[in-house]
Amino acid sequence: MATPPDRDRLGEFDIIARFFAPLATDPASLGLTDDAALLHGEAGKDLAVTTDTLIEGVHFLSSDPAETIGHKVLAVNLSDLASMGAEPMAYLLALSLPEHDPAFRSADWLGSFAAGLQQLQEASGATLIGGDTTGTPGPLAITITAMGRVPEGQAVLRSRAREGDLLYVTGTIGDAALGLRLLKDPSLSGDWNLTDDETRFLIDRYRRPQPRTGLARVLRHHANAAIDLSDGLAGDADKLCIASGLGARVDGRRVPLSKAAAKACKSDPSLLPALLGGGDDYEILAAIPEDRARAFEIDSQRPGVPVTAIGSLHARLPTQAEFIGLDGEPISLERRSFSHF
Amino acid sequence: MATPPDRDRLGEFDIIARFFAPLATDPASLGLTDDAALLHGEAGKDLAVTTDTLIEGVHFLSSDPAETIGHKVLAVNLSDLASMGAEPMAYLLALSLPEHDPAFRSADWLGSFAAGLQQLQEASGATLIGGDTTGTPGPLAITITAMGRVPEGQAVLRSRAREGDLLYVTGTIGDAALGLRLLKDPSLSGDWNLTDDETRFLIDRYRRPQPRTGLARVLRHHANAAIDLSDGLAGDADKLCIASGLGARVDGRRVPLSKAAAKACKSDPSLLPALLGGGDDYEILAAIPEDRARAFEIDSQRPGVPVTAIGSLHARLPTQAEFIGLDGEPISLERRSFSHF
Repeated sequence: MATPPDRDRLGEFDIIARFFAPLATDPASLGLTDDAALLHGEAGKDLAVTTDTLIEGVHFLSSDPAETIGHKVLAVNLSDLASMGAEPMAYLLALSLPEHDPAFRSADWLGSFAAGLQQLQEASGATLIGGDTTGTPGPLAITITAMGRVPEGQAVLRSRAREGDLLYVTGTIGDAALGLRLLKDPSLSGDWNLTDDETRFLIDRYRRPQPRTGLARVLRHHANAAIDLSDGLAGDADKLCIASGLGARVDGRRVPLSKAAAKACKSDPSLLPALLGGGDDYEILAAIPEDRARAFEIDSQRPGVPVTAIGSLHARLPTQAEFIGLDGEPISLERRSFSHF
Repeated sequence: MATPPDRDRLGEFDIIARFFAPLATDPASLGLTDDAALLHGEAGKDLAVTTDTLIEGVHFLSSDPAETIGHKVLAVNLSDLASMGAEPMAYLLALSLPEHDPAFRSADWLGSFAAGLQQLQEASGATLIGGDTTGTPGPLAITITAMGRVPEGQAVLRSRAREGDLLYVTGTIGDAALGLRLLKDPSLSGDWNLTDDETRFLIDRYRRPQPRTGLARVLRHHANAAIDLSDGLAGDADKLCIASGLGARVDGRRVPLSKAAAKACKSDPSLLPALLGGGDDYEILAAIPEDRARAFEIDSQRPGVPVTAIGSLHARLPTQAEFIGLDGEPISLERRSFSHF
């Protein structure tokens, strides 16, 4: 007996009601049943708005679990809000599901994808307020638009760094770039002498970036400028330099590496430039006035965000970041950033 | 001598600077150079936010001109804002350009696409404030998130229609559904006895929907409820009925048809149900209290939006729209709406 082909394939309105309406806990969403969401204006607050698209095979791998895909697409948007000093409030989800593959319309896949969103929205305070679900003849593609609130005039821009500011970076750099390499070639794990736990750690850093939402308030209080690291530390540092009209000197030896990344670099020292120019860190690079540096370090401890001073900003230098290596000489970076374009 | 393969292929930052930065005329955009846009909060105003994705081969045809694609993706979002009674303010553009086809990265294509956006943003008052540009192994895909302002508490929802309200529709219905058929099978033009101008008119209605932005204020003043017609009059009327808990009786003979659509229906009377259940009208269906009907009609003349009373809303009926035909009997609609899912 033939099984009806659409038996396990859920329709658009079933999907919204079953998997996405439970994420729409704010009245602004109007239950995901109207033409638009409706946010109340708030005097004395600015609204930061950002949008990012992730596409299967470009920004994540076909083999990535649905749950980490849901997590990642929200995380990369929340990372932009954090670097602006904004508190996450709401997001819209535009989901394009491949027509050719019924797996993407199964309760398994959708439930897992929604669970990835759910965990991060609970951790961050942002809720789903709207969206669009469509079929596509192409790969899975997801666009999220996220909104966050900032007290009026306190948003942290890329362009306001000043001469003499110290450059701080959160967390560790390059883990995601290594995780992506490990997913593409599992034999590297042995080449780099990594334990299974270390391999899993690096892969998880690629699949499940942690937006630095907890640092938003600290950045508002102390940072002159900040940028989130999506395309690679070197290239994103260049962007901050260009926007602020300053040059940066970064001590490559101070760039914080995880234990796993340090081990991989020890096995293969040629990896270091790849870590500095690799994407998907979703850490934050911030310009902190020298007299605020100590307070910034202390205040970052409360949300539990590790921060490391890696360099400083200078006028009368080319508007880019120069990385100094172990030998005191500039590190040559063939690729300063990772392009998804 | 070999031509460099990427000679005419523009990079991400070139594209943004050359084609999209000129659309970002509001300081909120921060020149499209920061992690997020920054809107000032406004007391006494609510913010309507909507997102819609258009995909090549699903929501528009590969043969559609770049300029009408740019127009359409902004128009469908502005249509959602209009039906909520919101004044367009800003939008974000997430653009996924096919990697396999360099035409999409040419100045020709991008210039034409941006011109489509430009014309509509000048007509509507919305400006580009942010976005994301990426490559995709799939078809051209575009997601716009649009934002509009509404005086606090005055947004027009789907769910507030009341017993006895009259149902009005703007413009004419079904043109876009016929235009799509004509694009897929040009010989229909002869079957339907259409002139070249009439054929072009119907195709233009499919490619270049006109959002009813001018009606937003009139809807706020007079409508109990409204919905924009994206998936077909019948199906979208059902959605308004369900949201408001009422049934609708619609006089099919009163549904406004353009001269070209009326001519096609005369040649082939079986087309009528397809017009009522076809998508892409981007007109507005509104529920107007009977004692406001005359004022609604008069006030709609100022922005030049034609409105037609086509039915009324009733309790104690199933929550759907029943269409009455020429013979006084219900019209049987096999397909009540067009699904892109």
